[in-house]
Amino acid sequence: MTAPRTLPITPLTAAGFAAFGQVIQTDGAERIMINEGTTTRFHDLANVDVGSDVGAGTGRPILSIFRGTRRPDPIAIRMMERHPLGSQAFMPLAAHDWLVVVAPTNADDSAPDFDSLRCLLARGDQGVNYARNVWHHPLLVLQPVQDFLIIDRAGPDGEAANANLQEYWLDAPVVAITA
Amino acid sequence: MTAPRTLPITPLTAAGFAAFGQVIQTDGAERIMINEGTTTRFHDLANVDVGSDVGAGTGRPILSIFRGTRRPDPIAIRMMERHPLGSQAFMPLAAHDWLVVVAPTNADDSAPDFDSLRCLLARGDQGVNYARNVWHHPLLVLQPVQDFLIIDRAGPDGEAANANLQEYWLDAPVVAITA
Repeated sequence: MTAPRTLPITPLTAAGFAAFGQVIQTDGAERIMINEGTTTRFHDLANVDVGSDVGAGTGRPILSIFRGTRRPDPIAIRMMERHPLGSQAFMPLAAHDWLVVVAPTNADDSAPDFDSLRCLLARGDQGVNYARNVWHHPLLVLQPVQDFLIIDRAGPDGEAANANLQEYWLDAPVVAITA
Repeated sequence: MTAPRTLPITPLTAAGFAAFGQVIQTDGAERIMINEGTTTRFHDLANVDVGSDVGAGTGRPILSIFRGTRRPDPIAIRMMERHPLGSQAFMPLAAHDWLVVVAPTNADDSAPDFDSLRCLLARGDQGVNYARNVWHHPLLVLQPVQDFLIIDRAGPDGEAANANLQEYWLDAPVVAITA
């Protein structure tokens, strides 16, 4: 078995992430002063998508908290997942750096393109919103534990529990991340 | 002019807030282990409402960041606002206590009932989701500055900018909060 290659870590930027979704951050946002000048609103930072164009699959947006724990180092990447019916946003609730791993889909849209995996270092004040159908790794934190607010989609009554989840597993890790 | 009365501050709890919306917190939430046991999902913590039952007024959920600054102490309450077409959620992005001020509506649903104002101390790990039409005070932080993630509603093209905002102003403050 070949040893996993090491994936470099590069900074998360709006431009670099544009093919995968949006970075939720104040940098570059529309700013609106509200509340008698006591509050700045950084407006409309992500495209929340609950599948309103998919007919019977229309869902509703939900808020959840994810409490992520750190995986063993180096972090082995052996699966990716995507949500075919909606977006999924992650916003850190404590300002610690964390990792985002994404991949384009392959030529026939059946699996992530593991040759094009990217590992992005998100600052503690940066969230991401994965667009519908974007392959991403489950939550990777660098602290022992870190909480995030999640904005994603719940399906209508009767929808299969896994209708909005596709997982792609490898037999062995292809890459490792040393963070 | 009568001096404003002092509003006591009481802890924010799910039960105490139930008439106004939901507390976004891990306490009491449904817990689902995901991501090979590395992440706990505290599931579906708020009723995000973008007016899907109001026909032409149907909106879309949006994510924004509010950067709130502290008002002078004591905090004078002279206005309340509400959103007739959707909910509005606030989740702190740094774990500092903050204040939530809400009121029931009056008998003919034309104004907040200022005699029943409540000031609730939210912990830094507690957010709130104001239900549609709930009178609340604009963001009140206790730190010099604190960021929040906001989940609320954007209207369809052509909707008036203030269609989802009602403000009720008093001639003079009725209450003060010493925090």
